[in-house]
Amino acid sequence: MGLHPAVAATRRGVRRTLADLDPGTTVLVACSGGADSLALLAATVFEGRKAGLRVIGATVDHGLQEGSAEHAARVVAQMAGLGADETATARVRVDPSGLGVEAAARRARYAVLEQLREHVGAAVVLLGHTRDDQAETVLLGLARGSGGRSIAGMRRAFDHYRRPLLDVARADTVAACLAEGIAYWDDPHNSDPGFARVRVRQRVLPVLEAELGPGIAATLARTADQVRADVEALDALADAAYQDLASPDGLPIDALGRLLPAVATRVLRLAALDAGAVDAELFHVHVTALDRLARGDLSGEVQLPGHVTAYRDGAHLRFRPTAVAG
Amino acid sequence: MGLHPAVAATRRGVRRTLADLDPGTTVLVACSGGADSLALLAATVFEGRKAGLRVIGATVDHGLQEGSAEHAARVVAQMAGLGADETATARVRVDPSGLGVEAAARRARYAVLEQLREHVGAAVVLLGHTRDDQAETVLLGLARGSGGRSIAGMRRAFDHYRRPLLDVARADTVAACLAEGIAYWDDPHNSDPGFARVRVRQRVLPVLEAELGPGIAATLARTADQVRADVEALDALADAAYQDLASPDGLPIDALGRLLPAVATRVLRLAALDAGAVDAELFHVHVTALDRLARGDLSGEVQLPGHVTAYRDGAHLRFRPTAVAG
Repeated sequence: MGLHPAVAATRRGVRRTLADLDPGTTVLVACSGGADSLALLAATVFEGRKAGLRVIGATVDHGLQEGSAEHAARVVAQMAGLGADETATARVRVDPSGLGVEAAARRARYAVLEQLREHVGAAVVLLGHTRDDQAETVLLGLARGSGGRSIAGMRRAFDHYRRPLLDVARADTVAACLAEGIAYWDDPHNSDPGFARVRVRQRVLPVLEAELGPGIAATLARTADQVRADVEALDALADAAYQDLASPDGLPIDALGRLLPAVATRVLRLAALDAGAVDAELFHVHVTALDRLARGDLSGEVQLPGHVTAYRDGAHLRFRPTAVAG
Repeated sequence: MGLHPAVAATRRGVRRTLADLDPGTTVLVACSGGADSLALLAATVFEGRKAGLRVIGATVDHGLQEGSAEHAARVVAQMAGLGADETATARVRVDPSGLGVEAAARRARYAVLEQLREHVGAAVVLLGHTRDDQAETVLLGLARGSGGRSIAGMRRAFDHYRRPLLDVARADTVAACLAEGIAYWDDPHNSDPGFARVRVRQRVLPVLEAELGPGIAATLARTADQVRADVEALDALADAAYQDLASPDGLPIDALGRLLPAVATRVLRLAALDAGAVDAELFHVHVTALDRLARGDLSGEVQLPGHVTAYRDGAHLRFRPTAVAG
């Protein structure tokens, strides 16, 4: 019997992702026990053996659900059974105050994965996000923010982290587990409609598929790749332009005017942040106002979040702390 | 009684859009008889009087529905009643063969509007697309294509055409008509679920609003503005880079490698089109293959739609017509 196509798809993703690693390199696989990360682990063990890599499976116990320690122990045993060279488990304490439980769990997870990575000397950490996770991320971003950044989705790689399954459908990770006889866990959080991501998965994407045709998840993921490349290019150009233009006198307005609009608005944003404006509260409407101030379409001053005032001073756009009434 | 906020919103959009026109300029308003274009006409008459503009209302009879000639006559009378300086109607023949009825009607409409515009000497033509139309366009693009271009939405202005209501909600154009006692027409096409746009309006956007929170149409429209600026900037940079690099020898691979990836992929696309590849069939997967060929990640040749073959020739990436078996 030939190789199951879903298993082939997961292995292909892993093989491409690890192609640059030398034999003997240590790879850490983050594994929740779900179909996606177990399929990832199995594929990494297979490809890792061929490439002479040391594959360590790691699971994180968030302590958020009843019996999570027992679950972590089961995942560790499962990873060992699948042929991981070593396994590790780490317990984290999630403090959701201020962040929300999803974001807090994510932050705690990355912190402990990073500790584990350093401890075992892993060159890379693999994450099991699929094409469907990417599509959900794009739609969540589309609803939350604005601009390319909001729909750029997850990066294929950052720092030591890589996502080999970003081109693989979630259904294929399930099919790969079934084909290889791997019993996977269905996280009850994954069907809790209290999470926006679950609502996107269960209600939004099916409606998009039904009304606009199949393949929407793949299209969204492809769009994210291209938009991310666009955003990264323009951010790099803006960084360079800002280094070039910024001076103690402020930003020279004539030079700003010669920049492409998409670069100029980014330079204005960088200047505002440098002057102390608060990133999370600096919206497109503020940057647009700075742009109009620079062009002379708006007179007076622009108030920015973080008590920063922008104003024109001759040929320059400048910033100062907003005067507080005494 | 003060000015109704919805009327104020439509007038503000029109005022901003026409701010650069000199008194005496002729403005053509394209009017279907729907709430959006009637609100647009009323606002343009009001702002046009203040600015000394000549406002001509024009309606296009697509001949697609029973009684369309009578409908066009009613719209003409209505535009005159609302104070248009002149009115015009034009009948077009829609030939949907090969295009689909929506696209064919749009093409016929723009062709006749352009004739009318030249005939009356209008400097600009105003189109009644609202923020909701823009959100629908973004979602349709998201489902259809990939990349920033697919979600860049409609431009605020192109050639002689401008869209003053792109920041105005459709509901506000309805409210403006009600507030001013304007009887508007509900095009039955607007509730025919045979059209993808209608399905987006009636089924997709309401689900997005319900699951991800209100304001999604405004967010989508804002994203389109920013993504469009990004795409235009990178297209401009790629055009310049391509002019710079293209030679009879092909594209120099080392110089390609020094471009930002988002610019390099666009340059490869331009080169493929110049070599005869078919625009509508040249997908991201082709451009990605060209990119890998240029980087040396792929050996051999890349076949492109339109019988074009790309290959490496020493330090250059070159194109030739694909040899056809004799």
